[in-house]
Amino acid sequence: MFDDVIWDKLNEECGVFGVFGHADAPQLTYYGIHALQHRGQESAGICASDGKNFSYHRGMGLVTEAFGNDELDHLRGHIAIGHVRYTTAGESKIENAQPLIFKYSHGNLALAHNGNLVNAKQVRHQLERQGSIFQTTSDTEVVAHLIARSGYDKIEEAVKESLRMIKGAYALLIMTEKKMIVALDPNGLRPLSLAKLGDAYVVSSETCAFDIVGATYLREVEPGEMVVIDEDGLRSERVSGNTQRAICSFEYIYFARPDSDIDGINVHTARKRLGRELAAEAPVEADVVTGVPDSSISAAIGYAEATGIPYELGLIKNRYVGRTFIQPSQELRAKGVRMKLSAVRKVVEGKRVVMIDDSIVRGTTSGRIVQMLRDAGAKEVHVRISSPPVMNSCFYGIDTSTRAELIAAKKNIEEMRQFIGADSLAFLSIDGLMRGTGRNSDHPNNGHCLACFTGQYPTEIYEEIEDESESENHCESLSKS
Amino acid sequence: MFDDVIWDKLNEECGVFGVFGHADAPQLTYYGIHALQHRGQESAGICASDGKNFSYHRGMGLVTEAFGNDELDHLRGHIAIGHVRYTTAGESKIENAQPLIFKYSHGNLALAHNGNLVNAKQVRHQLERQGSIFQTTSDTEVVAHLIARSGYDKIEEAVKESLRMIKGAYALLIMTEKKMIVALDPNGLRPLSLAKLGDAYVVSSETCAFDIVGATYLREVEPGEMVVIDEDGLRSERVSGNTQRAICSFEYIYFARPDSDIDGINVHTARKRLGRELAAEAPVEADVVTGVPDSSISAAIGYAEATGIPYELGLIKNRYVGRTFIQPSQELRAKGVRMKLSAVRKVVEGKRVVMIDDSIVRGTTSGRIVQMLRDAGAKEVHVRISSPPVMNSCFYGIDTSTRAELIAAKKNIEEMRQFIGADSLAFLSIDGLMRGTGRNSDHPNNGHCLACFTGQYPTEIYEEIEDESESENHCESLSKS
Amino acid sequence: MFDDVIWDKLNEECGVFGVFGHADAPQLTYYGIHALQHRGQESAGICASDGKNFSYHRGMGLVTEAFGNDELDHLRGHIAIGHVRYTTAGESKIENAQPLIFKYSHGNLALAHNGNLVNAKQVRHQLERQGSIFQTTSDTEVVAHLIARSGYDKIEEAVKESLRMIKGAYALLIMTEKKMIVALDPNGLRPLSLAKLGDAYVVSSETCAFDIVGATYLREVEPGEMVVIDEDGLRSERVSGNTQRAICSFEYIYFARPDSDIDGINVHTARKRLGRELAAEAPVEADVVTGVPDSSISAAIGYAEATGIPYELGLIKNRYVGRTFIQPSQELRAKGVRMKLSAVRKVVEGKRVVMIDDSIVRGTTSGRIVQMLRDAGAKEVHVRISSPPVMNSCFYGIDTSTRAELIAAKKNIEEMRQFIGADSLAFLSIDGLMRGTGRNSDHPNNGHCLACFTGQYPTEIYEEIEDESESENHCESLSKS
Amino acid sequence: MFDDVIWDKLNEECGVFGVFGHADAPQLTYYGIHALQHRGQESAGICASDGKNFSYHRGMGLVTEAFGNDELDHLRGHIAIGHVRYTTAGESKIENAQPLIFKYSHGNLALAHNGNLVNAKQVRHQLERQGSIFQTTSDTEVVAHLIARSGYDKIEEAVKESLRMIKGAYALLIMTEKKMIVALDPNGLRPLSLAKLGDAYVVSSETCAFDIVGATYLREVEPGEMVVIDEDGLRSERVSGNTQRAICSFEYIYFARPDSDIDGINVHTARKRLGRELAAEAPVEADVVTGVPDSSISAAIGYAEATGIPYELGLIKNRYVGRTFIQPSQELRAKGVRMKLSAVRKVVEGKRVVMIDDSIVRGTTSGRIVQMLRDAGAKEVHVRISSPPVMNSCFYGIDTSTRAELIAAKKNIEEMRQFIGADSLAFLSIDGLMRGTGRNSDHPNNGHCLACFTGQYPTEIYEEIEDESESENHCESLSKS
Repeated sequence: MFDDVIWDKLNEECGVFGVFGHADAPQLTYYGIHALQHRGQESAGICASDGKNFSYHRGMGLVTEAFGNDELDHLRGHIAIGHVRYTTAGESKIENAQPLIFKYSHGNLALAHNGNLVNAKQVRHQLERQGSIFQTTSDTEVVAHLIARSGYDKIEEAVKESLRMIKGAYALLIMTEKKMIVALDPNGLRPLSLAKLGDAYVVSSETCAFDIVGATYLREVEPGEMVVIDEDGLRSERVSGNTQRAICSFEYIYFARPDSDIDGINVHTARKRLGRELAAEAPVEADVVTGVPDSSISAAIGYAEATGIPYELGLIKNRYVGRTFIQPSQELRAKGVRMKLSAVRKVVEGKRVVMIDDSIVRGTTSGRIVQMLRDAGAKEVHVRISSPPVMNSCFYGIDTSTRAELIAAKKNIEEMRQFIGADSLAFLSIDGLMRGTGRNSDHPNNGHCLACFTGQYPTEIYEEIEDESESENHCESLSKS
Repeated sequence: MFDDVIWDKLNEECGVFGVFGHADAPQLTYYGIHALQHRGQESAGICASDGKNFSYHRGMGLVTEAFGNDELDHLRGHIAIGHVRYTTAGESKIENAQPLIFKYSHGNLALAHNGNLVNAKQVRHQLERQGSIFQTTSDTEVVAHLIARSGYDKIEEAVKESLRMIKGAYALLIMTEKKMIVALDPNGLRPLSLAKLGDAYVVSSETCAFDIVGATYLREVEPGEMVVIDEDGLRSERVSGNTQRAICSFEYIYFARPDSDIDGINVHTARKRLGRELAAEAPVEADVVTGVPDSSISAAIGYAEATGIPYELGLIKNRYVGRTFIQPSQELRAKGVRMKLSAVRKVVEGKRVVMIDDSIVRGTTSGRIVQMLRDAGAKEVHVRISSPPVMNSCFYGIDTSTRAELIAAKKNIEEMRQFIGADSLAFLSIDGLMRGTGRNSDHPNNGHCLACFTGQYPTEIYEEIEDESESENHCESLSKS
Repeated sequence: MFDDVIWDKLNEECGVFGVFGHADAPQLTYYGIHALQHRGQESAGICASDGKNFSYHRGMGLVTEAFGNDELDHLRGHIAIGHVRYTTAGESKIENAQPLIFKYSHGNLALAHNGNLVNAKQVRHQLERQGSIFQTTSDTEVVAHLIARSGYDKIEEAVKESLRMIKGAYALLIMTEKKMIVALDPNGLRPLSLAKLGDAYVVSSETCAFDIVGATYLREVEPGEMVVIDEDGLRSERVSGNTQRAICSFEYIYFARPDSDIDGINVHTARKRLGRELAAEAPVEADVVTGVPDSSISAAIGYAEATGIPYELGLIKNRYVGRTFIQPSQELRAKGVRMKLSAVRKVVEGKRVVMIDDSIVRGTTSGRIVQMLRDAGAKEVHVRISSPPVMNSCFYGIDTSTRAELIAAKKNIEEMRQFIGADSLAFLSIDGLMRGTGRNSDHPNNGHCLACFTGQYPTEIYEEIEDESESENHCESLSKS
Repeated sequence: MFDDVIWDKLNEECGVFGVFGHADAPQLTYYGIHALQHRGQESAGICASDGKNFSYHRGMGLVTEAFGNDELDHLRGHIAIGHVRYTTAGESKIENAQPLIFKYSHGNLALAHNGNLVNAKQVRHQLERQGSIFQTTSDTEVVAHLIARSGYDKIEEAVKESLRMIKGAYALLIMTEKKMIVALDPNGLRPLSLAKLGDAYVVSSETCAFDIVGATYLREVEPGEMVVIDEDGLRSERVSGNTQRAICSFEYIYFARPDSDIDGINVHTARKRLGRELAAEAPVEADVVTGVPDSSISAAIGYAEATGIPYELGLIKNRYVGRTFIQPSQELRAKGVRMKLSAVRKVVEGKRVVMIDDSIVRGTTSGRIVQMLRDAGAKEVHVRISSPPVMNSCFYGIDTSTRAELIAAKKNIEEMRQFIGADSLAFLSIDGLMRGTGRNSDHPNNGHCLACFTGQYPTEIYEEIEDESESENHCESLSKS
């Protein structure tokens, strides 16, 4: 919710975007990853192929920071894949920017990955014992090694074999000089969709990027599916027979852009329904409903509509707080200097306020916002969370370093309420979550991954995973209050 | 509404912020102008005084671009004034960044100005005939010359005499080594408020900046008032006996931040009431209400509440479109590549949509948004504007070069409706505007300036003003559709 | 000699360059000021006129840092003037970059100035009492005010009157929309030459810039002369009847580029002759002659040729030490980390070394170089200086803040020898200097300014000059050891 | 001679520098690679180890551009290796910047390499067939793969085995968390020396870097030697029994800094002797001797001393032409706009000039300089080259793409004379070169590599080498006239 290092945060994941068969492939990819910017602000990259040679550029920061006209003009070809990477609290290095590009025995290879492999460490150790060297800490490099070592001449075979060796979450774009290969893990933990733009194919983490380039939505990439696109067109193949859709619930709750659809369900609409479910489960007498901007606005409107309490802008976000913002010193903050979020006194003064937020991670941010509302004169503050309590680590992309810090893993709801200083606190139930998103599926949990709420993981989890925390995590970070 | 060069726009004005008597004056000013960032993104500057010497920095772009730690650390003193300047379509130069700093016979002088003088050209010609040289095209430099030439030893007297020679809109901060002087034009066309922070005084274009630094609102600066703040405290003086509050209506409609209060009226709340008035004046049968982000959201919520039609996020803004964004080529745009705004298909498809916008300037933007909604499947698009038609130029800061382009000056409402391709179109009435803002004043028009709607200007307008268009306009630009 | 803040230094002056009547005037000016880069590395600027409008750019740092293709392409016109400004130890600000540009009653005005006015403070105080405001601390702004206040309609008359009010050193380029005016002070303290390039006129601080643009040398600008160049051609006028050439001796000794000619005398050739004169006046038994790079190489070769002692590269300069070089900490320097200059052990080990330097200011640098040679094994170090001892402040551009630090003002030669740790030390005599430069003139001192050696100033010196040190010095700084 | 893309050029090689056992290892390495800046201006990098972790930074451009205080402060440890890479005409990418850093089964590995492997392509193909992936086109990455695949637990054994598989030129620094390994190829084609700094060891491509950090020269690294430095001290091992010193002659002629010693012979002194030998072999009646700056100055002084003809600065180099210099358009150049080199008219006018240059590659540069001297009035221009004609490609680091362009491979001396327009032309003989450098060795050719003159290569040359030209060349480029 907050991309602010001062406040704790739930980081967006990476985003991937690709085009096959369009004369403006690199430009379209620029606009595509720009539409996915909310999924990662640390680095951006595009690799293009003209059928013979690769041209590529990767840079730190936003797409608009990484790419100027020169960088974009330099990219040529009818195939292109792009990537945006999320911001970590730690060191961010250009070496980790994607797409990763390699040369191997059959030519060039570019990879763009959203997700996290749960057996990356095991595979990596094995590769190292066989003499492999690694230049990044990314699990994407593991995939490249597997492909190169497969021994298959055909890239499709090499990729297929490699995919069978990796476990976890992956929405993967692989490009050679002449082909684009798209792969999704057997649980479809990350969203990935296909579209057409004239004769060209487009693939994207979210459908909002299709709108931006004028492409027409075709379908979701299926769990366990590998799609090969080349001059002969598009071919699909099941890599895994044992698939079971388990899309990350947080895509609906927080990650995805409200104008995206996931499995045909619009995200804003789903969030409004989460707000309505929350209103049904946890109503309260109050004067105004306000959402924590930006991600909780939809749920707040849903809550307001369902309860009839007016929706107001009780909290406002300063749009211009970016990476170069000079944080106030402790001393100035102690004196009351605020940062990116302010409460609107005229709206909340003397009022009973329902504050809708999408989740609570560590609880510290929520506590501060409650206090901010009280400082602005709110008479009561009732916190309503449009998701269930997060009690377990995510091994599919969310930063495990914060596992011990999950407030819901340590406190019950009353303790949490006291911790954040609210007059009342309620979370959406898991049933409410499933009803709200509106998914209707034969898969368990209606095709949701609910592991962070329930502890039931859709894939095998490796024992050494404890150790994993020392390696650099791949693509998501859940360190919000 | 859009700060995008592709779409036409209504530019925010400048913002000014000052602190007297605080050990962290430059830091507080950094946070203050940051909170006013929406009023100007072209350049930012701060000048501080430690009682003996000035230190200052001005840079291009956002506050966070203009100031790094080095630049901020270099500023020292207990007095500081800051300024953010809006983006023009034309050339933006560091020379025009404020505060302007001068040396004159009595020492150093720094000026930060929001507004536009209507007799700047006349005064400037006179000064030039007397041998003055100018380094900027800004009317602020005219004020500095007047002060220096006044002959008075006391800065208060010099400023007072100078203020009597200038006409138009000004919210002005003037700093010497030991004093801060605050002045507002006799019509109070621009907002300007005072606050206290411990023993220190704070002045700001908008009250939202007080919240950010933890200051407590004191009062508005009065039209025609000059406030002198020095080590003896705060003294007020009426410079002009003939004052008549005429605050720019667009501050409520569009310019100001929703969490600011102007004359004690919260801007978000006023905008919601404008939406409610609009609903009363121009209801329509529809399925969803959506606002053009960001400035029309409040009015849209008000309209939705009053009509009972659900409020939805039918339009979404891409947050990351900034100055360095590479605009799509004409060809790509013709092919459907979109930019900063997208319609949310799942929300509007098959629906009768009420689209709330805050104003129409040239009409081209509105036409595109209507088309975008139709492309996304909207069955009907009913446009409702939360302000009256803009039919006259503004001489108080809004770019006169677009006067001929004001669609409402050339077309009646039905012609406009056809031009933008809406199923219906309605504007808020002037009465509705005045009721909606909630001002209740003895001054004409309840203390509003309605010149752009009515052609009745609160000040004298100079004949040669036609010629003015060639000079660089000071602080606002109204070139929106 | 060293542009290094660690070592003390003799700063180069500014350089000016102008073109009238060439389609590529801005580009030629870029190459012209680039050839004058050694005269100033703090900032660079060019202002061009197409007969109606000015276009200009000024930036910090080297010409290549201040100007990219965008900045250069943006400049248009057949007239252009350019400026490079020297580096001060203190704060360097873009505000002080030249050409300065002003608007006044008759249009636009650009000024580029090399030199220092000795009555700038007096004139400025007078102007301030009359109500003038100043944006820079530069004396060039004083000239602009005088022109604007002159009351004359014709720029030539206005400039002429202004020149009669200023005293000191100035090589001045003034540009209006249609004219270029060139002026030199009555003593011709700074070099300034004219050339032709096809039908165009070129003016430059040094002739080396003519070679770079392919222009043909015409003549020197005369002391007290004002040259007006416009579409009617070139007209010359004597502004002052009382002129007396007194060119700064340090132009020959140190400032100018060796491939420039001043008054028809090649600088490298003159420096070699200074070395020969020095050999005649102060011979010594030794094994090798070495010069302190870069400026003393010519004199060292002259000394070697005259004495028959072989010239060797006993000292070498690291070419890549620029403004962004990270200076070693005191601790590292104490441990022996060197910076830009090193002694070449194999060349000096066990040898009696003659070390030629062009001047001694504070003596600290010379002492370090002597020690460096000894550390590298030199058996004896005999220091020979190709100029007389600097005993007096310069008021024509050299930093007066170091006056008290001039070693030769406080110590006799034997004391200086001990201070720098040399086996012997000798300076060139004033007669040797005059013979060596090869000037042959009716003017006193063969047309040299020898004030820093003799204390006899060619112009009036103002009493309050003591006070001057607090203001920012204009264009040169003599703070070398 | 010219690092200018307009003129053809002989590119400097890379430079390597390392420190083991010093608390300021990263800082010392900064100053060390800064002293080696002349060997490469494309990129710079430093990797440090504190015994457990690596910290590193690599950046484009000069050392001072790649490293600011932040980048340097971030490096920690008592071991560090650094690298500067030369500028190619082609694309330069951060990916190719060194040291390269890898993770492998036994931890971290950093490599810095000067030289070129002649069998890199063969080894690389073999590695790719075994499934290796490559991220750079550098042969250094080949070495890393060999080490990782060796199967040895001890890094020394792994490196030794790897070195036995590579052929060609290499001066190599390899760093693990706890060790620094230094290796030189069996022919010692590149210089590499050891020094002590207190208890710490320092290794550098050139001895000039020892002076800068205050280290004391110990000895050369021997051909075929591997030196392991760790907490137990320094151990040496012969990797190859079949070694034969064949140092690149161009290190003496052109590459190395004049204040460096190679095999105990000072480079400036050697160059002066080359000039003396040239004077003996090819005297001429003339008035002045001038050298093409900077690299031919020493030889020119030697030639002048031996012939008695005075040495003059007839050609001068503009110091400030860097990568960001805006090249004059063809049109402006045709009009006479010059760039970095100018002839000094007063020195050469009417004179018979001996122009000393260090080498001729393509002949175009030489022709231009001759013409420049004639344009400046030289009566005769006699070109003397302080090395033999370059007739063969270099496979040890010099750009083979220019092989067909070597003028001496296609023309005899008289034809070359006509091509460059000189009155006479002479090259130093191979015997003169060997006498001049002053090496006295049992190895063939006194321990020189003379392959580019004679075609006799000290190592095996691989057939497919033709193909090599397509890959990116590693570290040197010989494309000078």
